[in-house]
Amino acid sequence: MFDVIAFDADDTLWHNESIFTMTQNKFREMLSSHGPEVVEQTLSSTQIKNLKHFGYGVKGFILSMIETSIELTNGDVSGNEIQQILDFGREMLAAPIELLPHVREVVEELSQNYHLWLITKGDLIDQETKIARSGLADYFSNVEIVSDKTIVTYTKILTQHRIEPVRFIMIGNSMRSDIVPLVQIGAHAVHIPYSSTWEHEQDHPHVDSDHYSELQHIGLLPNLILEKG
Amino acid sequence: MFDVIAFDADDTLWHNESIFTMTQNKFREMLSSHGPEVVEQTLSSTQIKNLKHFGYGVKGFILSMIETSIELTNGDVSGNEIQQILDFGREMLAAPIELLPHVREVVEELSQNYHLWLITKGDLIDQETKIARSGLADYFSNVEIVSDKTIVTYTKILTQHRIEPVRFIMIGNSMRSDIVPLVQIGAHAVHIPYSSTWEHEQDHPHVDSDHYSELQHIGLLPNLILEKG
Repeated sequence: MFDVIAFDADDTLWHNESIFTMTQNKFREMLSSHGPEVVEQTLSSTQIKNLKHFGYGVKGFILSMIETSIELTNGDVSGNEIQQILDFGREMLAAPIELLPHVREVVEELSQNYHLWLITKGDLIDQETKIARSGLADYFSNVEIVSDKTIVTYTKILTQHRIEPVRFIMIGNSMRSDIVPLVQIGAHAVHIPYSSTWEHEQDHPHVDSDHYSELQHIGLLPNLILEKG
Repeated sequence: MFDVIAFDADDTLWHNESIFTMTQNKFREMLSSHGPEVVEQTLSSTQIKNLKHFGYGVKGFILSMIETSIELTNGDVSGNEIQQILDFGREMLAAPIELLPHVREVVEELSQNYHLWLITKGDLIDQETKIARSGLADYFSNVEIVSDKTIVTYTKILTQHRIEPVRFIMIGNSMRSDIVPLVQIGAHAVHIPYSSTWEHEQDHPHVDSDHYSELQHIGLLPNLILEKG
């Protein structure tokens, strides 16, 4: 039934948000004299303001932390503290890729009968090095790194590869990015929630369709594919 | 004779290096007590060290400037100076796209008889916003934003689109990125040098092939395509 099974990467195949959360904790601690809530709110609004210019990814996050530290200290942040923020970033970029449970077996199993794709949103070089470090690169016949996941993005990719939406299924943790646009173009989608989800991602239109399933973890995916096929 | 004419973007269709040069001048001035050569050398080696992690693009350049300013001042750089560097970056990202002479006419003319592609190396969101701001987006039937331009990159793109190398021609200002790998896979390439070229780009293998031409400016391209076709 499916020509292609496509996966989101961050927080679908491997942990990603947890690395941002860990770094945010260190950042809050560094600026602890300003109170954790103020730090968090300022960082969050700086990030949202910068999203249009910087996109998603570690480099933009580092720049937003630097800007936040300057704003909160009225310019009194020290060079050494800025250096610490740069080091936080470098640690994020070097962090080992931790696959989520069942991912390796499921990807290996499905790759025997299907074309698997990876469609991930973010910074080009961040995502490329993560895919390389994940050890999963060889299972995917196509990798698309995009700056946003909208109906336009998915339609362009499917058209370019001459894939009919109805023969395409996308697996991901974000309703807004991985599920809603796919169902809207007539493709299938499987939502596998990650334990926590970035607040910016939580708003999404209602989805009511037999093209959409929800699973508790990715280990249940092969059975679902079998049933649908 | 050609199925596709592909263009590099930065310094082939529009000015780009000049924006980096202008910013570097401001940065040198900000740190003028350290001597212009020391600033330049430190920035250059920081950039090369960071290339693997940050890739090409404005965000990585800002981070390298920040790191350089900390290193040169032994951590004594002020929050306001760091803010200035962030503002340099924001100006770069907002800078208007200045097309090179003849570009608009040539792209418009060639688009009437050929599929035009854009293949550009750099940061995903930087490049996407530049293409949008250039006003040329509609002339290109395919845009590829890649982290590096190697034989592997080009082979993957051509295979995916089922284009024979011999029916593909690439136009660009960098021997290393736009010319050499193309000639090596049997495609055609036209080198149009930009007035200055980033030092990291200047080393490249010798090219000796009738698949390769050099033009003084892009206004001469339609005639060359006509002759070859």
